[in-house]
Amino acid sequence: VHVAGTRGRRPAGSGTREAIVAAASRAFAEQGYPRTTLRGIARDAGVDTRLVSHYFGSKQQLFITVVDLPFDPDLVMPALLAPGRGGVGFRLAAFAVGVMQTPEARRTMTGLLRAAASEEEAAVLVRDLLMERLLGPLARHLGGEDPELRASLAASQVAGLAFARHVVGLPRLASATPEELAAALGPVLEHYLTGDLSPAAP
Amino acid sequence: VHVAGTRGRRPAGSGTREAIVAAASRAFAEQGYPRTTLRGIARDAGVDTRLVSHYFGSKQQLFITVVDLPFDPDLVMPALLAPGRGGVGFRLAAFAVGVMQTPEARRTMTGLLRAAASEEEAAVLVRDLLMERLLGPLARHLGGEDPELRASLAASQVAGLAFARHVVGLPRLASATPEELAAALGPVLEHYLTGDLSPAAP
Repeated sequence: VHVAGTRGRRPAGSGTREAIVAAASRAFAEQGYPRTTLRGIARDAGVDTRLVSHYFGSKQQLFITVVDLPFDPDLVMPALLAPGRGGVGFRLAAFAVGVMQTPEARRTMTGLLRAAASEEEAAVLVRDLLMERLLGPLARHLGGEDPELRASLAASQVAGLAFARHVVGLPRLASATPEELAAALGPVLEHYLTGDLSPAAP
Repeated sequence: VHVAGTRGRRPAGSGTREAIVAAASRAFAEQGYPRTTLRGIARDAGVDTRLVSHYFGSKQQLFITVVDLPFDPDLVMPALLAPGRGGVGFRLAAFAVGVMQTPEARRTMTGLLRAAASEEEAAVLVRDLLMERLLGPLARHLGGEDPELRASLAASQVAGLAFARHVVGLPRLASATPEELAAALGPVLEHYLTGDLSPAAP
């Protein structure tokens, strides 16, 4: 169905970029990465497909552009580490669980997980985005020995919680309060970010 | 393309059930849950679609049937707990990381994660399967206070590691050795399964 005629084509400029970003956000969220097409986004935004390519290049670049983290990692990471390394895992646990209480953050997080699981092309985009905007800054501010392993382990737990709670919907995680989850995760992220990662098993 | 003619239809019986299961395993792994159809499975197995429905009912039931855990939870859970509750998290970490070194287990695990992320219908199936075959047995054998929360938190970390390492492909987790990962996860799973889950943050 070609609806451009009923909506009217939008001339270039005049909020075109914003209209494309809004249409792309809806498409990725509702249809998932593999089923989303530049043509469908253009139709929904009321513009020519070539205009979408002109502004954003490929579907991959458009996806990266519309992922809107609900916080600024360049502000959050230093703030989490400002009181010192001790306790950073507890603060990260409270922050991550708290952020995911907002519907926007939950949508962004589950959208990234779903995209990564959909096809290899999207997994690469998600990996680059996570590394550049979350794990990289966390590892840099953390410093010390093997900070990338530490940040990656912490990310695996935060992503795993989001997946188990909001995608799979494990009942006892869906029913847990944010306080319960932050308390359970605190010592774990503290261990990953600051603890001894190679102790002998007892 | 209708290839039944070239392969020849298989009569009912004579390995039909096995042929359907094999075709379904391939289809779910290669095309993902949403794109897999009973018609395509029937064609690949060289049987009539009605025969697939006759043996397995719906696509959902067929999916559950072909998920082949690479171990028997009814044997593994008691074995992990046999030496006592103390250390069960360390033993689970070594077991989970070790199992995922085999390609079959990794394929099953990532297949479940991808299916759960694909659509709500599949997420419900994965949730029920996890609860019934992994979390339920673990919680029952663990006993004590709030074992379902404990088992669910442990599952979120194991699933999160599989996701971050094998689906997203975070570089420092992809390059980690099984020993490194088991050592890092041991104290975490021990905390979730046996520790105090509601300590005050320091």
